[in-house]
Amino acid sequence: GGTGSVASSCPATKPSMLNVHLVPHTHDDVGWLKTVDQYFYGGRNYIQHAGVQYILDSVVAELQKDPARRFIYVETAFFFRWWSQQSRSTRNIVTQLVQEGCLEFVNGGWCMSDEASTHYSSVIDQMTLGLRFLNDTFGECGRPRVAWHIDPFGHAREHASIFAQMGYDGFFFGRLDYQDKDRRMKTKEMEMVWRASASLNPPTADLFTGVLPNGYNPPPGFCWDQSCSDDPVQDDPALEDYNVDDLVSRFISISKAALYKTNHIVMTMGSDFQYENANPWYKNMDKLIHYVNAQQANGSQVNVLYSTPSCYLQELNLANQTWPLKSDDFFPYADGPHDFWTGYFTSRPALKRYERLSNSLLQTCNQLEVLGGPKSRSGPFGKGDSDTMKRAMAVAQHHDAVSGTEKQHVADDYAKRLAEGWAHCQVPYVRPVGSRGHRVRPVGSRGHRVRPVAAARPLCADLKRPRVPSAPTLSGRASALRRPSPAAPPLCADLHAASPLCFQYLKVTFDPNTGLLSGLTNLETQQSVQLTQNFYWYNASVGNAESSQTSGAYIFRPNSSTPCAVSKNSNTVLCVCQNSVVQEVRQQFSPWVSQVVRLYEGSRELELEWTVGPVPVEDGFGKEVITRFDSNISSAGYFYSDSNGREVLERRKDYRPTWDLTQTEPIAGNYYPINSRAFIKDGKAQLTVVTERSQGVSSIYNGSLEIMLHRRLLRDDYRGVGEPLSEPGEFGNGLVVRGRLLLTLTPPETAADSHRPLAQGLVLQPLLSFQEGAPKPTSKLEFSALQAALPPAVHLLTLSQWDSESVLLRLEHQYESGESKAFSQPVTLNLQVHTHTHSAVTALLPCCLLYRLSLLCFDCSFFS
Amino acid sequence: GGTGSVASSCPATKPSMLNVHLVPHTHDDVGWLKTVDQYFYGGRNYIQHAGVQYILDSVVAELQKDPARRFIYVETAFFFRWWSQQSRSTRNIVTQLVQEGCLEFVNGGWCMSDEASTHYSSVIDQMTLGLRFLNDTFGECGRPRVAWHIDPFGHAREHASIFAQMGYDGFFFGRLDYQDKDRRMKTKEMEMVWRASASLNPPTADLFTGVLPNGYNPPPGFCWDQSCSDDPVQDDPALEDYNVDDLVSRFISISKAALYKTNHIVMTMGSDFQYENANPWYKNMDKLIHYVNAQQANGSQVNVLYSTPSCYLQELNLANQTWPLKSDDFFPYADGPHDFWTGYFTSRPALKRYERLSNSLLQTCNQLEVLGGPKSRSGPFGKGDSDTMKRAMAVAQHHDAVSGTEKQHVADDYAKRLAEGWAHCQVPYVRPVGSRGHRVRPVGSRGHRVRPVAAARPLCADLKRPRVPSAPTLSGRASALRRPSPAAPPLCADLHAASPLCFQYLKVTFDPNTGLLSGLTNLETQQSVQLTQNFYWYNASVGNAESSQTSGAYIFRPNSSTPCAVSKNSNTVLCVCQNSVVQEVRQQFSPWVSQVVRLYEGSRELELEWTVGPVPVEDGFGKEVITRFDSNISSAGYFYSDSNGREVLERRKDYRPTWDLTQTEPIAGNYYPINSRAFIKDGKAQLTVVTERSQGVSSIYNGSLEIMLHRRLLRDDYRGVGEPLSEPGEFGNGLVVRGRLLLTLTPPETAADSHRPLAQGLVLQPLLSFQEGAPKPTSKLEFSALQAALPPAVHLLTLSQWDSESVLLRLEHQYESGESKAFSQPVTLNLQVHTHTHSAVTALLPCCLLYRLSLLCFDCSFFS
Repeated sequence: GGTGSVASSCPATKPSMLNVHLVPHTHDDVGWLKTVDQYFYGGRNYIQHAGVQYILDSVVAELQKDPARRFIYVETAFFFRWWSQQSRSTRNIVTQLVQEGCLEFVNGGWCMSDEASTHYSSVIDQMTLGLRFLNDTFGECGRPRVAWHIDPFGHAREHASIFAQMGYDGFFFGRLDYQDKDRRMKTKEMEMVWRASASLNPPTADLFTGVLPNGYNPPPGFCWDQSCSDDPVQDDPALEDYNVDDLVSRFISISKAALYKTNHIVMTMGSDFQYENANPWYKNMDKLIHYVNAQQANGSQVNVLYSTPSCYLQELNLANQTWPLKSDDFFPYADGPHDFWTGYFTSRPALKRYERLSNSLLQTCNQLEVLGGPKSRSGPFGKGDSDTMKRAMAVAQHHDAVSGTEKQHVADDYAKRLAEGWAHCQVPYVRPVGSRGHRVRPVGSRGHRVRPVAAARPLCADLKRPRVPSAPTLSGRASALRRPSPAAPPLCADLHAASPLCFQYLKVTFDPNTGLLSGLTNLETQQSVQLTQNFYWYNASVGNAESSQTSGAYIFRPNSSTPCAVSKNSNTVLCVCQNSVVQEVRQQFSPWVSQVVRLYEGSRELELEWTVGPVPVEDGFGKEVITRFDSNISSAGYFYSDSNGREVLERRKDYRPTWDLTQTEPIAGNYYPINSRAFIKDGKAQLTVVTERSQGVSSIYNGSLEIMLHRRLLRDDYRGVGEPLSEPGEFGNGLVVRGRLLLTLTPPETAADSHRPLAQGLVLQPLLSFQEGAPKPTSKLEFSALQAALPPAVHLLTLSQWDSESVLLRLEHQYESGESKAFSQPVTLNLQVHTHTHSAVTALLPCCLLYRLSLLCFDCSFFS
Repeated sequence: GGTGSVASSCPATKPSMLNVHLVPHTHDDVGWLKTVDQYFYGGRNYIQHAGVQYILDSVVAELQKDPARRFIYVETAFFFRWWSQQSRSTRNIVTQLVQEGCLEFVNGGWCMSDEASTHYSSVIDQMTLGLRFLNDTFGECGRPRVAWHIDPFGHAREHASIFAQMGYDGFFFGRLDYQDKDRRMKTKEMEMVWRASASLNPPTADLFTGVLPNGYNPPPGFCWDQSCSDDPVQDDPALEDYNVDDLVSRFISISKAALYKTNHIVMTMGSDFQYENANPWYKNMDKLIHYVNAQQANGSQVNVLYSTPSCYLQELNLANQTWPLKSDDFFPYADGPHDFWTGYFTSRPALKRYERLSNSLLQTCNQLEVLGGPKSRSGPFGKGDSDTMKRAMAVAQHHDAVSGTEKQHVADDYAKRLAEGWAHCQVPYVRPVGSRGHRVRPVGSRGHRVRPVAAARPLCADLKRPRVPSAPTLSGRASALRRPSPAAPPLCADLHAASPLCFQYLKVTFDPNTGLLSGLTNLETQQSVQLTQNFYWYNASVGNAESSQTSGAYIFRPNSSTPCAVSKNSNTVLCVCQNSVVQEVRQQFSPWVSQVVRLYEGSRELELEWTVGPVPVEDGFGKEVITRFDSNISSAGYFYSDSNGREVLERRKDYRPTWDLTQTEPIAGNYYPINSRAFIKDGKAQLTVVTERSQGVSSIYNGSLEIMLHRRLLRDDYRGVGEPLSEPGEFGNGLVVRGRLLLTLTPPETAADSHRPLAQGLVLQPLLSFQEGAPKPTSKLEFSALQAALPPAVHLLTLSQWDSESVLLRLEHQYESGESKAFSQPVTLNLQVHTHTHSAVTALLPCCLLYRLSLLCFDCSFFS
């Protein structure tokens, strides 16, 4: 369904011929080698020639010249900027082009998100931002029908699931493992149905998925962009170099060689930032179509036409084919035997954390806007709202943003945008303090230079004088806020023989000789595992005889499968600290790696707060720092990692579910992304690690789980970024990164009961703010927006002001099918029971019915 | 006069302000790194990104968006190609843009000719070809009012004279000696009146001449072409990198710093092959104009506007200034102390000769078309006419064509085009032979690879069997044809002691020890000079401590002022040959340099036929080969060279007439171009050398004259061509070049009486063709198109079919004022006396009255 309106604008095809769908497109990174604004304007073209403003100018002009011409546009972050600068008459022209199907939006989110390092909640938000703009601007005609992730470096199942649930008709991408691609070409399985959820009943998360034949580039010899050097169609016999016959015959043989099931194939005619001058493209494609189709009079069976992915997809639907089924994902991605794109799972760990923390603030900011009403948008320090953060977060989802694969100055720009988002969110966040005259300039406004912070701290109103903490203002989800303890600071002792950490739920033992973790006992279930943990670094390859491939921002390639231990000492413990609320062991592994092992009273998880950096590179070795857990759990090569923070996929060492893998990189070829959690298990025990940012994970040995924490490299990896990944940090000597891992030991069957709320608690961690002076007598010391707690299975994903009349509420079932006896069941809830009788909240009730129409809300059947 | 129609389309200026005229333009080389067709289509963009078809597409689209926008176009060779591919509606749009003054043609020849190595007759032809197309297509509105030679590497006075006589209102160029430019900037003499002829009464050859401030580029930081990386106007305060204030203040200070006399300055907004995507240019210029002029509200006195050179010139005329007068030329051109562009005077000597010889064929072909009528355009080998040669010759005038400064494959292309011109001219040239079945495929048609030939031979019908010479068919000007002699072949003797060569007019002596020329006696005037001649080579600089400048296609820079003698032997004579018609001394200087010194019975000139090459470079030295005449003439540093084959200019060693020269290159800085002749003289004797191609010449020592004959170099000279000038020749081991110098010794006051007809005779040398069998009884063995000889001072420059109704006849007075007592007088002639009563010839009579209207004919006052 839903393709009726497409049909009317789709070009006619010839059923008896091979139809070649030319899809003119541009791939406009929302930041990479240049910042998003530099890309928009075409600034700093000495870095990369790219100016999106001109692309849209030029394409709109060219589309008007011939109604047969087509163009697709993807990145709403750019289209929005461009649209805002257009005259009424240009807007009218563009609207007409959209209505006529000449200009078609595909994907349509604010950006083309990364799939390895993004969290689903932020992906949904960024899609919403883009799609809402298109819907508001163009109505139904602006609705993208096809998801289009031509560039991301591996594909997450959860992304496909989200796209399916959003109502996309199909999904196209360009990059997949070279072995997988070879096989699919041979077996004509380049097109398939992706069953993208193990929890949702088919076809809820089924999505037609097509792999494009040339990545996202034109076939060789047919690139007519200003950035290319292929010869144009030289069709004047009076001039030298007449080449029509040659071009036509080459095009026909390329078309015939394509290995697809139907008599339709798609050819992407465009690439990175192309169509800045659309005329050479269209002028030559016009000629190509003319001369290739003219051969039909001589018996040629090739018919070439301007088309779009949705028109191509419509033809596939009409072909009534049965497609192969895909139910795992497309990680890891390799484009050669020694070229695994598994480094970026961890690249720029501080940016990855800042992005995640910013999501937490955005959700809080959204909620406060709803709860505070219009007056929340102005405060003692000026006006502000969540819009800046919404856009900054949307931009940060880009596949060269949170992925960590951008140039350093661009990473700085993403961080600066987030910081500006924080500043604007201060307005709803900071309560008026009554005193006048203090007006804090927002952090990160023009002229400031903001870098990603190693461990971002809650942002408070900077009043420029000493402040006395007062009662915290409740924000966000009250349930996750740990109350400040009245206990004294922990006492520390410099002990070489570590005693166990122990509160009521967990006991943690240390090896008295090495000072390393040695065991973990769940005191509730009375189960124990032997467990050691240590820090190592892989020596980054600088290329070798087998391959010149280096480790870089994208690629992970260790020069040996055996990592070096960070600590050269036999005993790493520095001290043990404790009071009635917390017990800590502080470990120093080297001058640049330390860790606090922390157990809180009342907690079922162990917190490992690691600090890594500045990673030394004076020895000439790039370093990829991991922490590895080694246990006596019989994991037998299996491990598990989440997909975009949501469903969990099984991983298996040196194995791919859909093809017979030839493993060529024993370490890098076994790395997978985690966004929130990973685990190993056997029949009795499951060791789960919950993370607070996206990272790379693997299990190389039986019972072990390793997580890559930080990377500092000395070479570029030849994928375009043109810089070694060596973040300078505050002092220029290398970035220090701090982070946390939460560890649980449980029976496998109840593991999700712990890790689901734990992970969501980390994602939406409470944010603290403070105000001067004692609370007024009228101050509310407690507040909850909920009349009653939601059922444990139900997670409040979004509560956000939509317009003056309504708010957006997203609720989701947060357990997978079958993962929890207690909570994996369907839940029914009555929203009015759980919310205050606030008019705005009441108004949002029908929003869950907007599914497939506005793409704003998940399917309500999810709850049924 | 004549500016009335310009005024109506010129933009308003502000008399009280500094008006900055932005002149959007593109500089489209008619061949350089790519061939003219590759440039037109945008083929081989890997060599250089350039596609003129897109430039014109894009500019026409952008001009339609705002009537204030302007563009100038220069090279009709490209415009013609583009126009021929346009639809009627596009043609209508373009015509309207021309009529409204939005699109203005400047210069308007087929190409922007080289000024150092072109002959005036071919310059006039190529201008005619372009201007006629513009006139036929657009009428008066298409007429260029301004000559525009922004790129040629030095400027010839004869070019300025031609432009003045053609009715141009002014002339702009970009390149002049850096010392000259410095001085002119300081004295505000960047604009002047060039009195471009010493013969014509002022103001006949007076031409307003302006030197552009930034060559032909935009001011630094304001290039918005796709080929540039300057930041665009980033005027959205919501985005990063807002830069309006900075750009506006930089533009205003650049404008104020310009050193021109009036309150108008011109800024060229464009460069090589720019505006392929005109949108970034115009979009940002629109903004620049808006924001700069907005500052007028704050007191700024700078007013910026779209304009054209003719509108700028109109403002200068209104300013009623007195301009400084210039009466010499702008050679040689240097852009730095060691960077004299005097190498290209000689670069590619074979191409320079082939171009000149092709002109001779073209004139013959033109005349035969007129004399033969319409039936001359088809012959036994198919149809053909002079059009191909007209275009090939016009293209060859380009400043990277006959100049020899193009890449090798482009030089090959020019030669191939000329060869195709020869093939097409065979049709009028070759008389029907009566026998059928022989159909000679034209030389150089598609698929053939044609290289410049060392010494081009007259092209005959290649009948693929032995041919017996029969009576020659008269062609061209009969007076210059030397009848074949019935004498026996010369007898040769291997003599080491050379005896003099001597016929009735000239005696030539040789040094019995060295075998070199030792003296010359004019037996009529009984004057003798001591005269030696030898061959040398300058060792091409590969850069040194003073400067990294190398010798290359453009630049001549010897690494020492002392050239090496080619011959290491004491005696060079190989043999002396003679019969009753000719006496020869054959000299061998080295395996790669030889010469025949030849004296014909009845000749007043000595012929030196030199053969140079393959120039050996195995020693690692690039070589610039000269021949030098050393005499006892007291030339005292003065010497003389012609300008484009017409008027002669005085040269003086280490001296420039208009500024106090600091000589930094004692050899290269004294080189000048010759196109047809050079001489030295004292009170009694003048030694004149007449050449058959363009070359470089100098006089370094008293009484000496040196001519550069050939160059083979191993380095590029960093002016863009990107290749060392090392012509491979037929066998890949270096090109062999053969040529002739004609030497006369006369009293100075009668020298022109000899060298004028001698030079014209070389330019329009007779071309021979043969036919099989004995002449039929009805064959005319003699024919002249002239009823009576023209007066000696009058030269038939052009006789060419114009259209079916008329022919073009150009006659010129070929003597300078005062150079000949006998012939420098005004001449009156009645055309009907001199021509057959052929209807076509009769019809052309009024053509000389078209002066200033059609630009086709020289001023008739020239004859009065």
